[in-house]
Amino acid sequence: MPSYRAPVKDTLFVLQSVCKLDAHSNLPGFADATPDVVQAVVEEGGKFCEGVLAPINHSGDLQGCTRHADGSVTTPDGFKAAYDAFVEGGWGTLMAPSDYGGQGMPHIIGTVFQEFSASANMAFAMYPGLNEGAQAAIMAVGSPELKERFLPNMVHGRWTGTMNLTEPQCGTDLGLIRTRAEPQADGSYKISGTKIFISAGEHDLSENIIHLVLAKTPDAPDSVKGISLFLVPKFLVNADGTLGARNGVSCGSIEHKMGIHANATCVMNYDGATGYLLGEEMKGLRAMFIMMNAARLGVGVQGLAQAEVAYQNAVTYARDRLQGRALTGAKNPDAKADPLMVHPDVRRMLMDGRAFIEGARALILWGGLQVDLAHKAATPEERELADDLISLLTPVIKGYCTDKGYEIATTSQQVYGGHGYIAEWGMEQFVRDARIAQIYEGTNGIQAMDLVGRKLAMNGGRGLRAYLGLIAENVASGKADPRTEALATGLEKAAGELQAATMWLMQNGMTNPDNAGAGATAYLHLMGIVALGEMWLRMAIASHAALDAGSSDKPFFEAKLITARYFAERNFPDCGALRRKIEAGSAAMMAMPAEAF
Amino acid sequence: MPSYRAPVKDTLFVLQSVCKLDAHSNLPGFADATPDVVQAVVEEGGKFCEGVLAPINHSGDLQGCTRHADGSVTTPDGFKAAYDAFVEGGWGTLMAPSDYGGQGMPHIIGTVFQEFSASANMAFAMYPGLNEGAQAAIMAVGSPELKERFLPNMVHGRWTGTMNLTEPQCGTDLGLIRTRAEPQADGSYKISGTKIFISAGEHDLSENIIHLVLAKTPDAPDSVKGISLFLVPKFLVNADGTLGARNGVSCGSIEHKMGIHANATCVMNYDGATGYLLGEEMKGLRAMFIMMNAARLGVGVQGLAQAEVAYQNAVTYARDRLQGRALTGAKNPDAKADPLMVHPDVRRMLMDGRAFIEGARALILWGGLQVDLAHKAATPEERELADDLISLLTPVIKGYCTDKGYEIATTSQQVYGGHGYIAEWGMEQFVRDARIAQIYEGTNGIQAMDLVGRKLAMNGGRGLRAYLGLIAENVASGKADPRTEALATGLEKAAGELQAATMWLMQNGMTNPDNAGAGATAYLHLMGIVALGEMWLRMAIASHAALDAGSSDKPFFEAKLITARYFAERNFPDCGALRRKIEAGSAAMMAMPAEAF
Repeated sequence: MPSYRAPVKDTLFVLQSVCKLDAHSNLPGFADATPDVVQAVVEEGGKFCEGVLAPINHSGDLQGCTRHADGSVTTPDGFKAAYDAFVEGGWGTLMAPSDYGGQGMPHIIGTVFQEFSASANMAFAMYPGLNEGAQAAIMAVGSPELKERFLPNMVHGRWTGTMNLTEPQCGTDLGLIRTRAEPQADGSYKISGTKIFISAGEHDLSENIIHLVLAKTPDAPDSVKGISLFLVPKFLVNADGTLGARNGVSCGSIEHKMGIHANATCVMNYDGATGYLLGEEMKGLRAMFIMMNAARLGVGVQGLAQAEVAYQNAVTYARDRLQGRALTGAKNPDAKADPLMVHPDVRRMLMDGRAFIEGARALILWGGLQVDLAHKAATPEERELADDLISLLTPVIKGYCTDKGYEIATTSQQVYGGHGYIAEWGMEQFVRDARIAQIYEGTNGIQAMDLVGRKLAMNGGRGLRAYLGLIAENVASGKADPRTEALATGLEKAAGELQAATMWLMQNGMTNPDNAGAGATAYLHLMGIVALGEMWLRMAIASHAALDAGSSDKPFFEAKLITARYFAERNFPDCGALRRKIEAGSAAMMAMPAEAF
Repeated sequence: MPSYRAPVKDTLFVLQSVCKLDAHSNLPGFADATPDVVQAVVEEGGKFCEGVLAPINHSGDLQGCTRHADGSVTTPDGFKAAYDAFVEGGWGTLMAPSDYGGQGMPHIIGTVFQEFSASANMAFAMYPGLNEGAQAAIMAVGSPELKERFLPNMVHGRWTGTMNLTEPQCGTDLGLIRTRAEPQADGSYKISGTKIFISAGEHDLSENIIHLVLAKTPDAPDSVKGISLFLVPKFLVNADGTLGARNGVSCGSIEHKMGIHANATCVMNYDGATGYLLGEEMKGLRAMFIMMNAARLGVGVQGLAQAEVAYQNAVTYARDRLQGRALTGAKNPDAKADPLMVHPDVRRMLMDGRAFIEGARALILWGGLQVDLAHKAATPEERELADDLISLLTPVIKGYCTDKGYEIATTSQQVYGGHGYIAEWGMEQFVRDARIAQIYEGTNGIQAMDLVGRKLAMNGGRGLRAYLGLIAENVASGKADPRTEALATGLEKAAGELQAATMWLMQNGMTNPDNAGAGATAYLHLMGIVALGEMWLRMAIASHAALDAGSSDKPFFEAKLITARYFAERNFPDCGALRRKIEAGSAAMMAMPAEAF
């Protein structure tokens, strides 16, 4: 059975030294997040995930969810008790505004708990995760009355939420939606249609489930421009807030999937269910994207989280398993073999994991900070900058961190040799669970198109310019110290490849948009390496500063510096290769007749 | 449910135009493999795999194998009938020598059937695959009496074989083996111990199971030098060839695994079982490697095979699924959306698959030819050259083709979006099945160490020199025609990176062997790209020749040329990056204290 220890120390380092949380204590929400409070939340959150969520991760995978003849769904043994403890501990209320019973903590702090819980038990963490996404959409566009009626119970966790987009004939292309919404005399709507792949669509954890559903009103145009968003509760809610009649929505079946078995993926049937318009009619997609952007960041976190837990277990195995001898002579001469850890190729796998994980954690928490700053920074300029940066980097965090998350989960499984393939060791579950993160909330191909087709050109390219400027600043700081000069120079070169690739895409995507599509995924990966490289430079600078200041935790900072070097040596070389792939354009792939494939 | 069509046309192209089968018709075995016979075997083999094996692949995964209280194991529904049809059709006898009832066809032809069957049903194909490996070892080192007693029934398929290496405490490091062999007065041995991960260790397909088992005799040194190989039948065999008493070997349990559910992975308990020494005492490892080298090539085939079937289904889905519009304007204006195939990023995924698959098929069949030539070529020089080449490339075929096989299975699953994650669509099975090929028969890290640590230096580097010489010859041919000049130049540059990386490893691995270990996997991938690139150049030259000769199948050869170009554009850029990673050496990864991970 695998185990999990929350990476408390590394998290506190990133919050303090990379994100400089103290520097933002003047902002709403941050004032309460004093160093003591942050440390307590991180430590206690870690303990909860280690002690309550991790122990039911493997058993939950084996047992899965069960749908009964009446359409009800039971989660695996222990999930209801763990969810009750989750609610009791207030872990779902961290980021929610105090108006609705939340703790009003910064988004960056909530992101820490997202990571820990998604490492400990990804299938479990999705239930509150979807609830948070639904809350975000209601907060953003719901009427005061809907907010009042639904948000307090959702924030509390007594009720949970879902997102209903996909239908059998439409995934990415939401213009194909067929679910209909008929307006009623009382201002409500009757919703009819079938939604598929609805995570947490039905379960036994909460008293009510609040579905947010995309549907078309009768006269809406037959395209994405005709989509509206509706709130459809499983149980109708009386005026006094008590639960009323069962609504016309039910779970038709649950899917048998590659992974996340403990999360119920439902086919949801809407049969004249009562729904309430959220926001304006035919502006549903905009409202959905509020929830979607937060969800995409959350999925990026899942990539990091599965890599982290898989890496941790691979390290333990590499320390414990005795097999073979070091190439440079026995390191454990009293035993019949050395631990796996002595073999460079095993260390390569572990270091690949570590270099990704620590870089991604920094990027994701720094991204969480930008979400906060976009709403709360003191000046409009600072808010615009933060919004530009997180808009640009959302597809990178989602796409790059989940592609790498799957890769590192697989690599960590590889450290186990044959045992990695056996279910009881638990490593193969991490791979299967990590796999979905590349697919849902917009496949990684869609993330790449969002980056290249929308985010680069947004506001005349302001976001990328700002980001490259910020990188150049850090490169300059890095070059000023001979100890970080090589890393800074490597990052400068990588950013140069990114700039050149951007230029190529701008010029050649204009004349033929297929050139942009052909290079999109390579471009997303290129920006991912640059983004992690930038974080590694920040971490290296901070580590030298800590050592110079005589830190009592020398081993921690020395390990950071070694990993920074490894990251640069093993990742920056790919930047030039990715640029060349982008610059190859679309000619070859588009020349192939469809029937020739 | 996914489907499978054997790639008959592409296979015949590779056999004829890349491997030039006709040019070898003077050799034993090849004489009977006339173009008509080869075409018939390929076509009928394809039909058998499509019609008999593919239909029970998905159901076999869902059902898995069952172990009963008496230790017997039942394979999934339909497997016994399919195996009977397999035996009836003589598909297991293709490559076996006629002395034992085989058809004596060249290894290269047997490799074709290996691919088709591993695409159609990898878990099924492993049963006869292990049988063939066991036969190879018995043929190579068994006494005339053991050969006579066991081989005819094994070749026929009435009996099957297994390989027993791994024990709980030892996988890669076979020096740690604890299974004991006590010599008996009659010349036999009593074998006692526990073996794990024994594929096809127990099942209901054959009347007897012949286990080849590594064990140590009483006075053997406690290292790999003390290992002997034994033949241990499930049922003892009487002098007249009939089955005798049940031997003291039994299946203690079967493993629950990530994939290949329909192949029984057994814990085998040996409790004073009667065994017969195969070859010389304490030379067991050498005998085992005869079987292992063939098995490693077979595992490389599995990587190709799973990529092929996953790719085929992704193509079908990309043609059928309507979603979104082409970036260059609607291609299917009468419907509400265009097929996925119009999107460059979808084509990127398909072309990545195609470029790998067709290149790997050529490499693997050409490798199969080298196995034949190593035994049957007319002169000692030709035999030595073929043996050098296949020794060098065995770890590349195993390691590179299975790493890429898993990648392409994953990429093909990605084409399906959310449906790829759902079991009933069958794509996730390909990923789970493909995953084991990177692990068993020596993990891919072990393949990389075999390449860098043994194969490069073998015979003073004769193999690599010969291979680079052969590449240079093809580059010269390619450069002579302006139509293949760019491809040839790309290959030349890639081979130059390989040469430079080799030089670096030679120099820096000598002073510190950790440098060789640190770069081994990157080096294996680098050689994999060069090897596929070389095949693409051959195929491009052959395609131009066919078009120049007025081939009636223009679309086939034009698609080859497009794919060759795509391969070069998207794979050669990685060679320089891989070289730089190799040249980074082991300093960073080895600097990390074990406790700091």
